[in-house]
Formats: sequence, structure tokens, C-alpha cells
Amino acid sequence: MKNCFYAQSGGVTAVINASACGLIETARKYPETFGHVYAGLNGILGALNENLVDTSALSDSQVASLKYTPGGAFGSCRYKLKSLEQHSSQYNRLIEVFRAHNIGYFFYNGGGDSQDTAHKVAQMGEQMGYPIRCIGIPKTVDNDLPITDNCPGFGSVAKYIAVSTAEAALDVASMAETSTKVFIMEVMGRHAGWIAASSGLAATYPGAAPHIILFPEVAFNPEKFLEKVKTQVKENGYCVIVVSEGLRHADGRFLAESGLTDAFGHKQLGGVAPVIAQMIKSHLGYKYHWAVCDYLQRAARHIASQTDVDQAYALGEAAIEFAKQGKSGIMTTIERTSDNPYCWQIGEAPLAKVANVEQALPKHYITEDGFNITEAARQYLSPLIQGEAYPPYDNGLPRYQVLPHQLVPKVLPKFDEV
Amino acid sequence: MKNCFYAQSGGVTAVINASACGLIETARKYPETFGHVYAGLNGILGALNENLVDTSALSDSQVASLKYTPGGAFGSCRYKLKSLEQHSSQYNRLIEVFRAHNIGYFFYNGGGDSQDTAHKVAQMGEQMGYPIRCIGIPKTVDNDLPITDNCPGFGSVAKYIAVSTAEAALDVASMAETSTKVFIMEVMGRHAGWIAASSGLAATYPGAAPHIILFPEVAFNPEKFLEKVKTQVKENGYCVIVVSEGLRHADGRFLAESGLTDAFGHKQLGGVAPVIAQMIKSHLGYKYHWAVCDYLQRAARHIASQTDVDQAYALGEAAIEFAKQGKSGIMTTIERTSDNPYCWQIGEAPLAKVANVEQALPKHYITEDGFNITEAARQYLSPLIQGEAYPPYDNGLPRYQVLPHQLVPKVLPKFDEV
Repeated sequence: MKNCFYAQSGGVTAVINASACGLIETARKYPETFGHVYAGLNGILGALNENLVDTSALSDSQVASLKYTPGGAFGSCRYKLKSLEQHSSQYNRLIEVFRAHNIGYFFYNGGGDSQDTAHKVAQMGEQMGYPIRCIGIPKTVDNDLPITDNCPGFGSVAKYIAVSTAEAALDVASMAETSTKVFIMEVMGRHAGWIAASSGLAATYPGAAPHIILFPEVAFNPEKFLEKVKTQVKENGYCVIVVSEGLRHADGRFLAESGLTDAFGHKQLGGVAPVIAQMIKSHLGYKYHWAVCDYLQRAARHIASQTDVDQAYALGEAAIEFAKQGKSGIMTTIERTSDNPYCWQIGEAPLAKVANVEQALPKHYITEDGFNITEAARQYLSPLIQGEAYPPYDNGLPRYQVLPHQLVPKVLPKFDEV
Repeated sequence: MKNCFYAQSGGVTAVINASACGLIETARKYPETFGHVYAGLNGILGALNENLVDTSALSDSQVASLKYTPGGAFGSCRYKLKSLEQHSSQYNRLIEVFRAHNIGYFFYNGGGDSQDTAHKVAQMGEQMGYPIRCIGIPKTVDNDLPITDNCPGFGSVAKYIAVSTAEAALDVASMAETSTKVFIMEVMGRHAGWIAASSGLAATYPGAAPHIILFPEVAFNPEKFLEKVKTQVKENGYCVIVVSEGLRHADGRFLAESGLTDAFGHKQLGGVAPVIAQMIKSHLGYKYHWAVCDYLQRAARHIASQTDVDQAYALGEAAIEFAKQGKSGIMTTIERTSDNPYCWQIGEAPLAKVANVEQALPKHYITEDGFNITEAARQYLSPLIQGEAYPPYDNGLPRYQVLPHQLVPKVLPKFDEV
């Protein structure tokens, strides 16, 4: 009987802990197969530094609380392993730690970079002769992993963004006669416009917001944009714009880096929303307001999608089931079997095919003028925001749990090459 | 039997429509006393321009939907009436419109400026001999009206801000080891720190966020602030900062106007969050993220406080009851009769005493170092965020209603002095 290593990696989400919950609860069902589940403190660093949180010390209700607590309960990391050839000592260390703690299963919960880590550990196991079953669990608000229908974390961000767009639009509509006429909301998505696209779900009636979506996939054309803003204000009395942080000029530069400097001449890395706002003010004179959602969007467990929570849990659960069946070198996936009604099942994809591959927003999801989403996009996105998975509340606030990190006693010397 | 004029004024909130709902539903209970309820399109402008929305055309279920729809259903305005002496023609026009539409009741739903409008209309009625009962209904996320325990709209913003602070903090805590160490969230409150203070409710365990709150009431001291950030990062591994948009330098200038210029040398009116972020980066080198909540906070009906919704409704309801009793020249208020358990009842305040009066955050609500809230503040704030008044959902999105504006036929010539 072997122990499991589980870790969270990359930017966290509102539901990554739901995957942890699915994994730990399922492992507990098979005590004859799985020993302890050790969670790496801060992702793969937990393995390299021998910082292993013993989840056996958590009560069933503590584990259950993971299902409704956002963030990464065991800490995450942005840390990329080099190749076996480039940094063999790191892999030797991993094997040393795994051997010392009788670890035979490796579960890595993250996006494209993290699946690369899972893939490298799987290769290491084969090439260096250490028997370990490696399974990736998808997670990324960017929704840019290939093969899987969607990525846990995205559905809840999509719901937050669609709801926030609808709400802010009602506010602006009320104020437009004598005050704010343009509202700009900046959302995440450095390379892909999935999150920006999800705002389009708010447009449930003719003339509804968002009136303009600015995607990283569409080079920014200031003239065309300003003309569109003018038309929208004329038609609706106001204009709601959702802009992706990754919006770029035609020459590839980010708009967010449009040469703002502070009073001391330091370059100011601001958001793109104020840049867009200033442009509208200068050229059209409209009064504006802008918001930058940043972490609020990906941490908003209070308005998580039930579909997203269910899928995140199921993907963690499936990782254990697959491992039990002897599988390795795969990532668990969501397979969409029907659009309407939305049906899905668990599938699998080879880690080699998901590591470092980015799934862009398809062209036919963006309208011809480049400023909104198509019906095809709507059909894809809508099922992902269905259902409200409210957390329990105490005293007006969500009952989020911060779990204790009881570390397994270290048996190895410190490792210096982290 | 006279008709009623009701209008919404100033910045809107997640629950101002709940007050409209309470007022309209209650007026419908007394058909022998109250005729039509005419809603002014865009506040007092609706009266001046004779743009009156006939709410009698709304079905009971349309009226009920006001209780869970954010924004101002009849449009709001930022428009201040001059004094009777300065602009008597405007008052003549009001009386002309009221007379033409048999209006004997004037209900105005707004903050300090709006209560001033209600007060002036009441004075007009007396001085110009037009019999009209004027009642104000409080509304402002700024929570700065005097006499009333709190202002509808504030409790829901407070809940949104406290929940968002707790959620973002869990995110930053997960990332801090290898990435973001400081998170800065900008909230509303140009003159008073009530909203910033509400973030303090998120701190439910030792070391919990927010670690620093920056109030407009406390002059910004960069050295003391940076020292505090450093200590907090050392102690907790990360630091969550909530900053009010109204934060000022010791000389009175807003930090948000700290001389940012764009590539063309235009002055950039940015948020205060990026200014704080840049300061931390320059002096301490920590990786940061920042968010600006803007309209999202005051429109967030999806996470409204049940207490707030109940009070907003009750204040609208009471306006009708008071009018029926023959009262005039007052604003409906909330009276807190007990802190624990929180008990409240409806009261009243003379318009003369609430118009243009701002209630600042009391000094004893801010800790001595100026960076957090005290137990007294917590005791005041906590009851206001109790309960989750979720809106109904269809297809993954709140069932917010955009009501039709069926205007009463105009009988007067156009008025040019608006």
C-alpha cells in the first residue's frame, strides 16, 4: 500500500479545493489501496522541500469544508521544473522524498504549466525506474487547456463576470441621463478571451450589456472602437464595455503598458481599464467609471457555478479512481456529450498532449465586428454557469475554513536547489 | 384622493428598488387614500420635464420584482434644485406639474443632497400655498446620513466588501510563497470611511485580512504605512490592504490624483489602488495585485444583506403609512433599539435636520494606529450584513427585471429651464 502526493499549482480558483475534496474523500473510501494523502505545501515545492501536509489529520468535516472554500488550501506555487537533462538533481530529490515517504501516486492540480510538471514526473518515474502513477487534475480560470470541455474554475469566474456585468449595467443605465454614460470592466485573460467572452452571457434582451467586448484575440483599433462607443451611447443612452487585461495594440504591445508614468517618472504598470477610460474621455467627452476585478473574480466562491463545483469535485474523484485502475500519465477531463440539455462525463487525456498546449478562443465565437460573442459561444458557455453553489454562512459571512497544516516529520536533509 | 410622486436620486444601490417596492405595494393597499403612484423618470427631472412613469400599469409581479433588482428602476439623477429665491420658476413648474396630475404626495428616495430636494419641495408647498405632503426615504451606500441608524444600500455594500476581502485574502495567502505578496482593494467612500471600515468584518480569526485599512479620515503617512506593510508581510507571509478612494495626503490632495500622466502628457485620473501598489513595489519590492470594485460593489444584489433589503422595504412602506397619517417634512429612519440581538424599528427625522448633513465615521471606530477598525465599529457594522437575500435565478443568471416606462400623457408645454 502506497501513499499519495497531491498538490495545487498556479493561480488558484474558487473551486480548486473542491477537487482536493473529491480526491481526499475518494481516497478515504479505499483504505486498502491508498495510505495517507500528503498534500504538498505550495505545490511541487512541498515535495522538493519535504513539506508534506498530512491530510489524515483532517476530520471528515474539515475535508468537506474544502468543497466550499476558495483559494488553495495547501498553498500554491508558480514554479516550473526544468527537464530531466537540465536539472537531474531535482528529480533525484523528488524520488528521494517519494521513497522516504512511501509515495506511489502523484496528483497535480493545475493549468498547462502544471500539467507539464505532472508529465515530467511521469517521465522521471519511467526513465529513472521509480514506480509512480501520475495523474493531472485540470484547473485554470483561463480555460485554455486542450481536450477537456472546460477547466474547473472557469465556470465560476464566468458566472461572476456575467452577473457583475448585468448588475453594473443596471447601475449605469440609471445614472446615464445626468452622470456616468460609459462603464468599463477589466477582466482576467492575458492570452485568451474566454473570461471576457463570458460577460456576453449577461445580454439576455435586445440592447442589454455588454455592448462592447474587447478580446486579446482582436487587435485594438481605436477609431473603430470609439465609433462603436458613440453609436452604443446614442442607441442605449449608455455603454458597458468589458475589456480583457490582455488587450493589445496592432503592433503587439499591451494597452495596459501604454506608457503611464507617475509623478517621479516611474513607468506605471496600470490596468487597461483606465487607459480605455481616458481615451473615451479625451475623444468623446463621456463621463465614465471603471472597475478592475482582479483576484475578486477568481476567488468569488460566494457566487460559484454549481456545474463548476460538481465538475471540480468529480475530476478529483476520478483521479483516484483512475489511479486505482492502474492508469498513469493522464489528466482527467470533462467530455461534453450533449449541449441541450447539457450532459457531461469524465474522460482522460495523455499528459503529453495537454502539457504546455494553449486552447485559444475559437474565431467563430467572436462576432464579425470583433466586439461581441456569437450564438455558438453562448451555447458553449451557458451550461458552465448553471446553478448556484452557495457556501454556508455564519454571522453574515461565508463559513470558509483555513485548515491547519500538520506537517509530516522530515527525515531527509534540507535541499538547496529550489 | 391625490396621486403620489416618487423618485430615485443620486447614486443608486442594490436595494433602492426594494424601497420603491415597499412604497408601491403599500400604496396599493389603500386605494381609498392614494391614487396612482407616478415615478419620476430620472428623479426630480421627471417632475420638471413632466416625464411621469405610471406604476399603475405594472402588474403585482412586476412590482414584486423590484425587491430583487439592483439599480434605479425609474432612472436616477444628480441634479440639485436651487433655493426658492434663486430659481422660483423651477418651483412654479413643479407646482404646475403636480397640479396638472393631481399630485398631493411627494416621496424622494436618496442621500443628503436628495433630502435637501425633498426639504425644498416641502418648503415650497408651505410658502407657495400648494398642499403637498413630502417624505424622504433614505438611500446611500456612503452611510453618511445623520439620525438614522444606517442607510439602505450600505449594508449590502458592506457585505459584498467583507465577503470579497475574505475571498481575495484566501487567494493571496495561497500565492504568497512564490508570487503575489500584497493585494490592494479599492472601495468607494469619497468623504467617509464607512465602506472601507466594513472590510474589517472579514477579520474573523487572528492574522486574518484585512491587515491594513486606509480611511479618508486618516491623513496618509507613507513611511508609517510602508513600515506596516513590511511587518504584516513578515508576520503573515502576505498583506491585504483595503483603501478608500477618498484617501488623502496630509496636505489634503487625493492620492488618486497623484500626478499620473499618460503617453501624451495628459493627466490621468486613476484609482488610488495602483498608486499604492506602485509605492509598495518601488520601496519594498513585493509583487502585488490590485482591484477596483467601483460600481460592482453597490450593484451587487446577488450578495445583498437580508437586513438591508428588509430595512429598505420597510422604509418605503413607512413613507406611505406616515403620509396616510398626515405627516410631512420628514425622512423615514431606522432606529436601533438593541445591538445584541440586533433589533430595529422605524422612526422619523425632520428633513431640515438631515438635508446636507454628513455623518462621518466616529473616531472611536478607528484603531489608534489608524489602520483598522475597533470592536465598537464591529458591533455597529456586523448586524447590517446579516442574512443572504438571494435573488431568484433563471438559466444561471439573476432574474433581474427591466420594467417598461409607460409615461403618463403630457398636458403641459415643454419646460426649458432644466
